[in-house]
Amino acid sequence: MTEDDVISAIATLCQDRLRRVTLGIGDDAALWQASRSHRSAISTDMQVEGVHFTREMMPLQDVGWRAMAAALSDLAAMGARPVLATVALAFPRETQREELLEVYRGLSECGRRFKTAIAGGDLSVAPSLVLSITVVGEVRPSDAKTRAGARPGDVVAITGRLGAARAGLELARQSLALDEEHAAAALRAFRRPEPRLAEGRFFAASKNVTAMMDCSDGLATDLARLADAAVCAATLESVPLHDAARRVAALLGEDPEKFALAGGEEYELMVAVKPRAFAHLSARYAKRFKRPLLRVGTFGKGSGVTWNGAPLERSGWDHFTT
Amino acid sequence: MTEDDVISAIATLCQDRLRRVTLGIGDDAALWQASRSHRSAISTDMQVEGVHFTREMMPLQDVGWRAMAAALSDLAAMGARPVLATVALAFPRETQREELLEVYRGLSECGRRFKTAIAGGDLSVAPSLVLSITVVGEVRPSDAKTRAGARPGDVVAITGRLGAARAGLELARQSLALDEEHAAAALRAFRRPEPRLAEGRFFAASKNVTAMMDCSDGLATDLARLADAAVCAATLESVPLHDAARRVAALLGEDPEKFALAGGEEYELMVAVKPRAFAHLSARYAKRFKRPLLRVGTFGKGSGVTWNGAPLERSGWDHFTT
Repeated sequence: MTEDDVISAIATLCQDRLRRVTLGIGDDAALWQASRSHRSAISTDMQVEGVHFTREMMPLQDVGWRAMAAALSDLAAMGARPVLATVALAFPRETQREELLEVYRGLSECGRRFKTAIAGGDLSVAPSLVLSITVVGEVRPSDAKTRAGARPGDVVAITGRLGAARAGLELARQSLALDEEHAAAALRAFRRPEPRLAEGRFFAASKNVTAMMDCSDGLATDLARLADAAVCAATLESVPLHDAARRVAALLGEDPEKFALAGGEEYELMVAVKPRAFAHLSARYAKRFKRPLLRVGTFGKGSGVTWNGAPLERSGWDHFTT
Repeated sequence: MTEDDVISAIATLCQDRLRRVTLGIGDDAALWQASRSHRSAISTDMQVEGVHFTREMMPLQDVGWRAMAAALSDLAAMGARPVLATVALAFPRETQREELLEVYRGLSECGRRFKTAIAGGDLSVAPSLVLSITVVGEVRPSDAKTRAGARPGDVVAITGRLGAARAGLELARQSLALDEEHAAAALRAFRRPEPRLAEGRFFAASKNVTAMMDCSDGLATDLARLADAAVCAATLESVPLHDAARRVAALLGEDPEKFALAGGEEYELMVAVKPRAFAHLSARYAKRFKRPLLRVGTFGKGSGVTWNGAPLERSGWDHFTT
């Protein structure tokens, strides 16, 4: 059983009551019509100790930050502006009060940074630490960007170089002879990722952006999902690697591109852009965000993802098998 | 550390970013202003295997129903009409696809029954089954009922007899010589509770209802919470016991009132009503719902809960200690 297969079976089970829900299971966030002029967006993200993190890898405050950032990234991918979050936190019986509050300090710090109120939630004991964060945001109906809109010919681009979070994970697991600057960048990417909310709203406002999602399960898996949603094929042309990923992979004797293709747990946005508009949009993006918009490929007719002339496997993060 | 203490510390940590959130941490649901004329309500409820249920106690479909019902009950307590839910489901690695879908069948059945779309969520492996359900609903700003509005003199009433869910828990744990009719009622109360959504909207529409919450952690704890929120004292005058609770307690040689005072995991609503309006409101309620509104006590000046002339301990369900 794979994640995508089960989600599709669940979507079939749950499709019958949609009322004012205008976008349901299967995209980064769901949308509903909160009033005549407004759409609200909602998304839920879960982080489990021993699956998404261990306490040895990062302080509890970072566990909180990271969970909130992961949830907010799904609103970014919809072009929505966050309003609030609810937090369900399950924790082992021996957890101390101060440890719980450390998690909330991280959650709250990330919430404050991205203007998201923590408005409620639930607490329970459990065998391990589990955080389930639900975020709600708003988006103008005409701005919401789903995964499904790409067309053959569209350019695929991402908002930042990939692989740093995976490099940070390796650094948190073992001691490596890496220079301070790259080590700090990798650990920051792993422990304190930043959801691309401003970038998401920038893309949402452009009619030339045809599809958007966050690239949180590795480029190979997520590009395949974007292609599938659009009923298109995708050709991967280049894999923009973070310097820290290149260096850590070299120290471990691993293929650095795997860090980007199968790394996951990082939150750059991936967009499909009409080909004639790409040069202008990427220039505006670079001016606004002081970073380049990185072209990684193109969509075409057909299905599947091609890389270096061969089919690319979905080698990314699967929560059921990792 | 107690649940109420930690929630209060968390509320302090998270109070700084409220923007359009008009009611934050500490009530049954949070409220935000979705548009000029509308309030949305949101609540999150978590159910953990081994804490809130075991697989021996009920089929997986009932695990799903019960989790959705528990979450919807918090919208009922706010007087809100449900719109959608998101579901985060963590499950042990050895879980079968069909088992996951059984949980979703129960979630979806309960969602359909109460007009709630399952719009999204997340899936992950974990050491045990954890369900975190977030529900979103709508309520007219003037209708929303918080916990805080009761005044000295107000009557306290509940929507149904208590203790059946606890009786069902005992029946699920052990074989007891109980007649079929009461056994079925107790097991239904435990496995297939019904959120009082129509009742919640009925109370929400009445200006004479000053406060409302769901009575899901046992009457002793929840009445104390309602009194604390109103800065009032409460006198408990009677404990309306379900027949099945009376019979199961007798078979076990236990005090049946404990089933109601400390049982929890059932979802009747508790309301505070202006004293002069109670007779009229309860007559209207009985006509509409074909069941009586049960008077259980009154609010007065001071603090704490009195029962039979003595202070009543908060003997209810605490997720940190049970």
